Amino acid sequence: MKTVHVSASKSYDVLIGSGLLEQAGSLIRAAAPAGRAMLVADDTVFSLYGAALIRALNAADYAVETFVFPHGEASKNGNTYLSLLNAMAEKGITRSDITVALGGGVTGDMAGFAAATYMRGMRWVQVPTTLLSAVDASVGGKTAIDLPSGKNLAGAFWQPSLVLCDCSTLATLPEAVFTDGCAEVIKYGVIADAALFEQLKNPIQPQLEDIIAVCVSIKSDVVQSDEFDTGRRKILNFGHTVGHAVEKCSGFSVSHGRAVAIGMAVASRAASSRGLCPAACAEEIQALLTAYSLPVTTEYGAEALVPAMLSDKKRAGGTIDMILPRKTGECGIFPTPVDALDGLLRAGLEVL
Amino acid sequence: MKTVHVSASKSYDVLIGSGLLEQAGSLIRAAAPAGRAMLVADDTVFSLYGAALIRALNAADYAVETFVFPHGEASKNGNTYLSLLNAMAEKGITRSDITVALGGGVTGDMAGFAAATYMRGMRWVQVPTTLLSAVDASVGGKTAIDLPSGKNLAGAFWQPSLVLCDCSTLATLPEAVFTDGCAEVIKYGVIADAALFEQLKNPIQPQLEDIIAVCVSIKSDVVQSDEFDTGRRKILNFGHTVGHAVEKCSGFSVSHGRAVAIGMAVASRAASSRGLCPAACAEEIQALLTAYSLPVTTEYGAEALVPAMLSDKKRAGGTIDMILPRKTGECGIFPTPVDALDGLLRAGLEVL
Repeated sequence: MKTVHVSASKSYDVLIGSGLLEQAGSLIRAAAPAGRAMLVADDTVFSLYGAALIRALNAADYAVETFVFPHGEASKNGNTYLSLLNAMAEKGITRSDITVALGGGVTGDMAGFAAATYMRGMRWVQVPTTLLSAVDASVGGKTAIDLPSGKNLAGAFWQPSLVLCDCSTLATLPEAVFTDGCAEVIKYGVIADAALFEQLKNPIQPQLEDIIAVCVSIKSDVVQSDEFDTGRRKILNFGHTVGHAVEKCSGFSVSHGRAVAIGMAVASRAASSRGLCPAACAEEIQALLTAYSLPVTTEYGAEALVPAMLSDKKRAGGTIDMILPRKTGECGIFPTPVDALDGLLRAGLEVL
Repeated sequence: MKTVHVSASKSYDVLIGSGLLEQAGSLIRAAAPAGRAMLVADDTVFSLYGAALIRALNAADYAVETFVFPHGEASKNGNTYLSLLNAMAEKGITRSDITVALGGGVTGDMAGFAAATYMRGMRWVQVPTTLLSAVDASVGGKTAIDLPSGKNLAGAFWQPSLVLCDCSTLATLPEAVFTDGCAEVIKYGVIADAALFEQLKNPIQPQLEDIIAVCVSIKSDVVQSDEFDTGRRKILNFGHTVGHAVEKCSGFSVSHGRAVAIGMAVASRAASSRGLCPAACAEEIQALLTAYSLPVTTEYGAEALVPAMLSDKKRAGGTIDMILPRKTGECGIFPTPVDALDGLLRAGLEVL
């Protein structure tokens, strides 16, 4: 088992290893003693791991209440969020109890937002069951729901008390979901760690525990330097500004990881076209994405993507911060005037 | 004009005076420069002061978007909150813009919660138009919506950038609304300021600016010592634990101020019955409430009020913190086991 200690406005540990689900009760009790646990999961994840987690929580003397919702990004909306809050209230959950989010990003984001706002804030524990949420959602304290106008438009910064990444739950993922997470892992290599980028040229499965720990450490370092997302943390958005626009244009039929892969490829080609990184860098990024069966092109053009980007919350007044690679292992933040976006995007959409 | 400076996790000024509405644009611009203002008000308040505030904002070069909702506590729910968030998103409001909450507690609580969570937090300005919200909601950063199971069950701590209390808007209040605010003013006298308590024996109208400033200062002092509501701040709940239960039992047909008046009277009589304060203290509190045409008894018995209190969020595990007076100007926090509540409440419900 590996432990990454995260120091945000509140400190907590991310534990990474196999078989953590079975020890969850005692691990949670050590981190955040509470009377009752409000377990939140989607129907798919609940049927896979719900019983084991409840058993582990009961063994550590937690009474468990559950909220199970239909799987999929479409559930990450205001209505599911309100239903969860109502369920907590009806079950008499108090500020001294704890929310346990078992699942991927949708569950963590929404359950975390409910924990942030139920009675103005209660503690919560995150148990990511996807590679994507293990390396991405487990650090940073960003919780959110989607609004009809866009993803993650409502939310809060709210740190968990503990994150348990059980690698054995990741091993049972459908391949498409695992591949999605690989996009985010590759992102860490591009933005901050050339050694990780090289390491990823070898098969990922045998090195999973290591690689997750490296990604979590990178994110933790970046977030610690900028908890409230006003400066350097923006580099974590590499691939995401265009990626979110692709997701939105597709009515969310393109998955997050694939959309981010496209976003990274577009940003890399755009950077190369502007001379911000060598052409070889954009080619290498594109090749690694392709090796992981991730897409590097999109059917949507600038005329569709730009308006979608403009409704994204990363917009600050008249500019959008574009994250572009300088080389593998290093990215820069480029505030881009709204009227220059179209040109930059068109350059990035051109296939190498 | 009086200024009370509040130092919370974020510092801001509460300005109290007449005619502030007309200067709102320049005052807001000085405190929080922003491109656009999202003005939130209920239909009644909007028809009274909306035009004047928009004029003032426009004069200071703010483009103004508006969200107007039906007046009344019933609007302070999850659906109105989601509608407001959606309106912000549809109008392309960004994190750099500002929310302006014009109205009483319902508007401030809900618009503040939307500001706290839209794009994970934007700045907001509060323009209270009721005495209650001027002395209560303007300090503390508590934002919230009601859930079907209870009041204020979802929310966030989120400090405004500025509070503008225009006393001339309070002068146009219906008498019943003004009286409601007087209950909260009397509360400050009981919990923290014997001089204020005495001052209130004289007519309040001629001393309004002074009295609001004193109340805001008291709340500011208490909140500064305990921003996240875990200790001393609980004394601000004097009258509220029973008060919320009365509101709930009545289906919110008893107003907040009247419910708090009843709650204060019940708590005072309970304290006196247990020898925690002199009988004369309970009598004096009851007499002042009565002088302000506020109720001191309720038709609901302990069998209805106790279950309503148990669903309140101030419950921490097996006890409820009851705030009881020791004398006028001083209250104590008494953690009360759930099974002792009934007896305490019955003592408090007995008329002197």
